[in-house]
Amino acid sequence: MRKFLVFGVVLSLVISCTQQPAARQDAFPFHLPREKPDREMSAAMERIYTAYRAPKPDDNELFSQFKYTELKGFDYHGHDGTVSRRDPSKILLHGGKYYVWYTHRQTPTPPQGAANANDTIPSSDWDLSEIWYATSKDGFNWEEQGVAIERPEKPLVGWRSVTTTDILHWKGKFYLYYQGFMEASGKRGDDCPVAVSYADSPDGPWTPHHQIVIPNGAEGAWDQYSIHDPYPLVHNGRIYLYYKSDFGEKGDLVRMQGLAIADDPLGPFTKHPLNPVITSGHETSLFPFEEGVAALVYKDGPEHNTIQYSKDWVNFEIASITELMPYAAAPFVPDAFSDTKNGRGITWGLAHFINLGGSEKFHSMLVRFDCDLSLDLHDPEMKRHRVNHRPDVYFRQGLSEKQRLRIQQEQTLTE
Amino acid sequence: MRKFLVFGVVLSLVISCTQQPAARQDAFPFHLPREKPDREMSAAMERIYTAYRAPKPDDNELFSQFKYTELKGFDYHGHDGTVSRRDPSKILLHGGKYYVWYTHRQTPTPPQGAANANDTIPSSDWDLSEIWYATSKDGFNWEEQGVAIERPEKPLVGWRSVTTTDILHWKGKFYLYYQGFMEASGKRGDDCPVAVSYADSPDGPWTPHHQIVIPNGAEGAWDQYSIHDPYPLVHNGRIYLYYKSDFGEKGDLVRMQGLAIADDPLGPFTKHPLNPVITSGHETSLFPFEEGVAALVYKDGPEHNTIQYSKDWVNFEIASITELMPYAAAPFVPDAFSDTKNGRGITWGLAHFINLGGSEKFHSMLVRFDCDLSLDLHDPEMKRHRVNHRPDVYFRQGLSEKQRLRIQQEQTLTE
Repeated sequence: MRKFLVFGVVLSLVISCTQQPAARQDAFPFHLPREKPDREMSAAMERIYTAYRAPKPDDNELFSQFKYTELKGFDYHGHDGTVSRRDPSKILLHGGKYYVWYTHRQTPTPPQGAANANDTIPSSDWDLSEIWYATSKDGFNWEEQGVAIERPEKPLVGWRSVTTTDILHWKGKFYLYYQGFMEASGKRGDDCPVAVSYADSPDGPWTPHHQIVIPNGAEGAWDQYSIHDPYPLVHNGRIYLYYKSDFGEKGDLVRMQGLAIADDPLGPFTKHPLNPVITSGHETSLFPFEEGVAALVYKDGPEHNTIQYSKDWVNFEIASITELMPYAAAPFVPDAFSDTKNGRGITWGLAHFINLGGSEKFHSMLVRFDCDLSLDLHDPEMKRHRVNHRPDVYFRQGLSEKQRLRIQQEQTLTE
Repeated sequence: MRKFLVFGVVLSLVISCTQQPAARQDAFPFHLPREKPDREMSAAMERIYTAYRAPKPDDNELFSQFKYTELKGFDYHGHDGTVSRRDPSKILLHGGKYYVWYTHRQTPTPPQGAANANDTIPSSDWDLSEIWYATSKDGFNWEEQGVAIERPEKPLVGWRSVTTTDILHWKGKFYLYYQGFMEASGKRGDDCPVAVSYADSPDGPWTPHHQIVIPNGAEGAWDQYSIHDPYPLVHNGRIYLYYKSDFGEKGDLVRMQGLAIADDPLGPFTKHPLNPVITSGHETSLFPFEEGVAALVYKDGPEHNTIQYSKDWVNFEIASITELMPYAAAPFVPDAFSDTKNGRGITWGLAHFINLGGSEKFHSMLVRFDCDLSLDLHDPEMKRHRVNHRPDVYFRQGLSEKQRLRIQQEQTLTE
């Protein structure tokens, strides 16, 4: 009996000695492993080691917060709605200066809707617009240089409005791609193809190609009515031009992004058979990153508020989830046209605030954003997980009268 | 020769007739298919048909915006920092009234930090606190009922502070789980286990169990120091209690969520071997949804700003990406304790705003949120893709002095 007792004590000691460390190892460790640990994990835990570049946003080169700064040097005529600037191009650094092109509207009145528009009264904020440009030594203070692309004579492409441009630097020449409107925007939707002008210098003069360079899709295609936000980059010795289209029914539009590829800036551009390649977002904002390309995806769709990455420039995955992203983000992309196989990322750019001033003074303005989506920068302030808003920001998102009434009625039913 | 020419014309007619429709079908269609189309698609397009409940956020029952309303009935002593309310419990509907429990601090001064805390001066906003409760007929107007859980005598669990409670209704009895502090918060971090009290009525009186019911993990485990935000639901006839822990080094804490399961409200609780089950978020906010459970995940981690879903209550996937989410969200979950196999979701709850008043008047307050994460509600206003912020919201997120200096210096180097 005594033998058995001793044996029992020894056995339980052995069990506790072997079990205790095992039990300790069994719980997930106190310090989050940087590399995927060799253990069974929950789906969410698996994912932080497989779906993102790093298990913590702090260490994810494709995660960032965004900081905003008002620009100096732009006159908005007292913000009365007769002057509007929106949809900036990528920033180009050339000859020691930063260049940006953008949609510039200067009209006798703010936009009046498609029904009230005429030859001088704009339908929308981007109707009856031209492409203007500005330069800067520091990215904060800008000098407006005036018009780059004027509206051509009717019926040339863009006679009604030329807007939403982007820049390409290719074999010593400069190309501005832009939306060319042939009717006042808003009649059906926002219908337009893409046109292009070229120049030997970013200061112009610009020669219009006077032809549609990215045509709308065939009848029934997702991009049959509009090609928006042309956004050229250089990859594998070719021009990779991303664009957005609005499709589906008015009031219920879906916005996605496609890719068109060309060997020559004047085309022909071949649309990628897997289009659309990005299913969310409202404007195109991309930059070479390592061997692939990254995209800022915001505003619309199931994957808004994300930064995405595609190794093959076609198939995008979510690289991070963030917030308060710049709209119509137009980054300074130093290696946009260098055909890099090691894209370094971005740290700043311009964006826009739209729908300012109410219907009486309706207009948009440009703004600067800063971020750390660069392999060469390490700014912990940009990697903070969240934006801490003050309560008024939340209270501005209050219930509508309709919603209050609905809730009251449901309340009565419950009691 | 003529024969050959005719043959050639016919051939090219045949080719163009067969190719033209094929080319049209080849482009993605103008109306986004509701069901996954049978075609080769980009990774992003594949994902909207496989990773989410619907290709459009509008149709996704687990996507919502959040609307905020100030509560009536709570006195914050002029918001001078001596009164604080935070970390509300789930809302309980009982006897025709809504109940909420929360952390209530009423101290001679605002928090003074761990070094300056004493028996009456709080270290943190949740130090020297009690669990109070309030009731409401409509969820907007509340009547504070006073204390539910007092701090017990030293050295009983929670003698220093009892905070961050949540409610369980189980077999006719009510259980409040809460964090029980045994030292002023902030000495090391925010160390505490979970205690529980029970009552026959939500109005009390509450009998403290006076024992740790969810113990901290073993040395070296992710949850060795703290068990936060206990959040009980009923599933498969058992108590599924989700909790958060902070781990890693101070100043660089990682916050994740685990699951502990029990057959009895007083324990023992068995921690799930796959813990942590949610890798992001700052507080626990879950609700039964269909056969599974959904979670609001916000503030911290790579998957903040998401709503997640787990069919098996353990392995969570991202169900939607959203923004401006409620912090410490404490929804009204009608079927939290009904052991449902068909959870219906949520439409409102309470949350908190923290860090108000600056260091002189530091405190927190409760707020109501509304949403449409319910299978029984269809509110298109809640399904709008985005929050449209005014420019001042962006400009508040400005560059720090340090960042401005950094950018200036880089600028000099570039030129």
